[in-house]
Amino acid sequence: MNAEIIAVGSELLTPYRMDTNSLYLTEQLNQLGVEVIFKSIVGDNLRQLVAAAEHGLFRSDILIFSGGLGPTEDDLTREAVAEALGATLRRDPEILARLEQRFADRGWRMSPNNAKQADVLDGATVLPNPNGSAPGQWIAGQFDGREHIIVLLPGPPFELKGLFESEVRERLRAKVPPTHLFTRTLKVAMLGESAVDARVAPIYKRYPDVDTTILAGAGEIELHFRTRAATLDAAEARADEVAELVEDELDDAVYSRNGESLEQIVSYWLQMRNATVAVAESCTGGLLAERITSISGSSRYFLGGAVVYSNQLKTEFAGVPEEMIHRHGAVSREVAAALAEGIRYRCESTLGVGITGVAGPTGGTADKPVGLVFHAVAGDSGTEVVQRTFPGDRKRIRRFASTMALDMLRKKLM
Amino acid sequence: MNAEIIAVGSELLTPYRMDTNSLYLTEQLNQLGVEVIFKSIVGDNLRQLVAAAEHGLFRSDILIFSGGLGPTEDDLTREAVAEALGATLRRDPEILARLEQRFADRGWRMSPNNAKQADVLDGATVLPNPNGSAPGQWIAGQFDGREHIIVLLPGPPFELKGLFESEVRERLRAKVPPTHLFTRTLKVAMLGESAVDARVAPIYKRYPDVDTTILAGAGEIELHFRTRAATLDAAEARADEVAELVEDELDDAVYSRNGESLEQIVSYWLQMRNATVAVAESCTGGLLAERITSISGSSRYFLGGAVVYSNQLKTEFAGVPEEMIHRHGAVSREVAAALAEGIRYRCESTLGVGITGVAGPTGGTADKPVGLVFHAVAGDSGTEVVQRTFPGDRKRIRRFASTMALDMLRKKLM
Repeated sequence: MNAEIIAVGSELLTPYRMDTNSLYLTEQLNQLGVEVIFKSIVGDNLRQLVAAAEHGLFRSDILIFSGGLGPTEDDLTREAVAEALGATLRRDPEILARLEQRFADRGWRMSPNNAKQADVLDGATVLPNPNGSAPGQWIAGQFDGREHIIVLLPGPPFELKGLFESEVRERLRAKVPPTHLFTRTLKVAMLGESAVDARVAPIYKRYPDVDTTILAGAGEIELHFRTRAATLDAAEARADEVAELVEDELDDAVYSRNGESLEQIVSYWLQMRNATVAVAESCTGGLLAERITSISGSSRYFLGGAVVYSNQLKTEFAGVPEEMIHRHGAVSREVAAALAEGIRYRCESTLGVGITGVAGPTGGTADKPVGLVFHAVAGDSGTEVVQRTFPGDRKRIRRFASTMALDMLRKKLM
Repeated sequence: MNAEIIAVGSELLTPYRMDTNSLYLTEQLNQLGVEVIFKSIVGDNLRQLVAAAEHGLFRSDILIFSGGLGPTEDDLTREAVAEALGATLRRDPEILARLEQRFADRGWRMSPNNAKQADVLDGATVLPNPNGSAPGQWIAGQFDGREHIIVLLPGPPFELKGLFESEVRERLRAKVPPTHLFTRTLKVAMLGESAVDARVAPIYKRYPDVDTTILAGAGEIELHFRTRAATLDAAEARADEVAELVEDELDDAVYSRNGESLEQIVSYWLQMRNATVAVAESCTGGLLAERITSISGSSRYFLGGAVVYSNQLKTEFAGVPEEMIHRHGAVSREVAAALAEGIRYRCESTLGVGITGVAGPTGGTADKPVGLVFHAVAGDSGTEVVQRTFPGDRKRIRRFASTMALDMLRKKLM
């Protein structure tokens, strides 16, 4: 069975908004073994919506609509689907009563336009929406000469997700042939995309039945191995066969095999080792501290840090000798090491991290070009410094540098 | 005239990739006075692609395809459009020669599959692609009984943008009626979306010809006023008429009217006042420093800061008296003020910022719930502290708190 997703709303046809619900829905459908063959975005226009629904019935087995279920004149999904299916809409007294109650609970009187949210396609099952006023609808039957499933979901992402999980997933599972889809994700730090592909392509190409996708960010790469089989165990075993060979090849560059972020992995290892960390950042300007503290509970191992943009503060907060900055420059191997050692000493942490570099776009020289970054991790066993020159703009260079530092921490701890 | 955008590529139908080209294209088309009425995403499937093209011809005046112009078997846009238009493809000897030259320049021999990139729709203008091997195509004429413009563009964003700017924009401008579209954007900090809407709706509703859109983030709201007129001046004057009334209503909550970010505005004022700033952050964990230093040249006014997660470091780096933390708690009005004053003193900056709060999801109490944040700005004229309780998850609370601090800085400086 295949599916298509129709996102409804004129705001999704502006330069400012994207339909992101379809990524979530695609993932959910894929997990049920259903492929998404088409996505469209339609404005709040009855004629366009009816056409999109009709084309969808011709093309796909499952049609999922998101949005257009609200109370305003612009909310036309119900009307359009009714017209495309040749169905009528009936006003559901139970939904109407619940809507009125929702307003009464807040001490308000319901305005009449809200009543249209109680309109239900003839033959449809109403899907209660715990997070909003508009319920979803599910209708399965013969339309356009063959079996279809049509689902109407509200547009706000948390309403859509809540409803999909509570009302739609199991209904779909009961209807689609029992295929199981399993995805193993390996995450890799600080290797280039083409270098990774060159090393692992000879492996995954031997498994044409496994769908391999490589996605690259600044310093982080994800490898997805996706398989379909009659049982979940069989799918998992096949995906893991490839994943394990790839892991052997990439060795300790693989930091996660269950979807954890690099920040989570570093958090795990710091707690495993009962270690604490402090950071002194120059060019990353707080990004490393921000990433470490994005994890809830990070106060258990993150003591704090200093953002030492000025040379004076490098000395003041991390004890970097003025003379060293003068001799080697603020962007140097020596200063990176001194930042790491100094902040470790000042904060009395197990590990100290220092970063100094040229984030650009200005400030680069022939000797010290934009993108040059020194990263240092100091601990009991000494201080390690890594020098890299990263490509890209200011944002990307800062992201790369913070990822490098997190990865050095990980390797130090594991 | 209206347009639709058809993004081609099976990878855009996975949970991992989005069609972002359409946002850029929509903005470009809107600026030419062309409305986008439909977007779709189609896999690398000839039958689906032909159907999408046929439906598009029926629906829209302008069809823009992105992707599917590469050399592989999966690249089917040329073939599909030819079939939908009833046109033939001819192999263009000039393009073929250029392709062969591209390979020869790199010392490679062109594999035969590349030749399909030289296939051109009969009657189409070839649009040279300086950033890649596949050229674009432009075809204007009667199809399906009326005038259409069909444009094929390569999928990689930098190729698509380069080609659109060099080859497509002026060709389109010559074809569409001379409508000018102007958008004025006001950005507002730290007011709620519904509060803003309640205050400004009575204004913008008096201008039904101005298209008003309100977009809300964590602590930041954008109001877009878009108008169409025969001249750019007329459009601008009309949009600004509404925008100025809205600005009068919202007063100094409006921080930008030309698209600048809050970080850029704070940067502007710090430089205007010849002031420097230093920050001491607890719950935001470096996010405020990261946002300030995201601006190139921020070293002119940002001296540095401290991420003081542990109580010990609040004392060590920002001189907060231990006794004060003990008496009032780390999350308190007093500690926020002491952080701001202490970091200002330590860094010898014009202004000091202190943030302390409960980012959650754990750590909240009845007295000090998750979301409670104290923000302080210290300067020559004294210290201001603002207490807020923000909704949402850890990420959103941290974003809110950093925006609040930036906005306090802005108001202090302006």
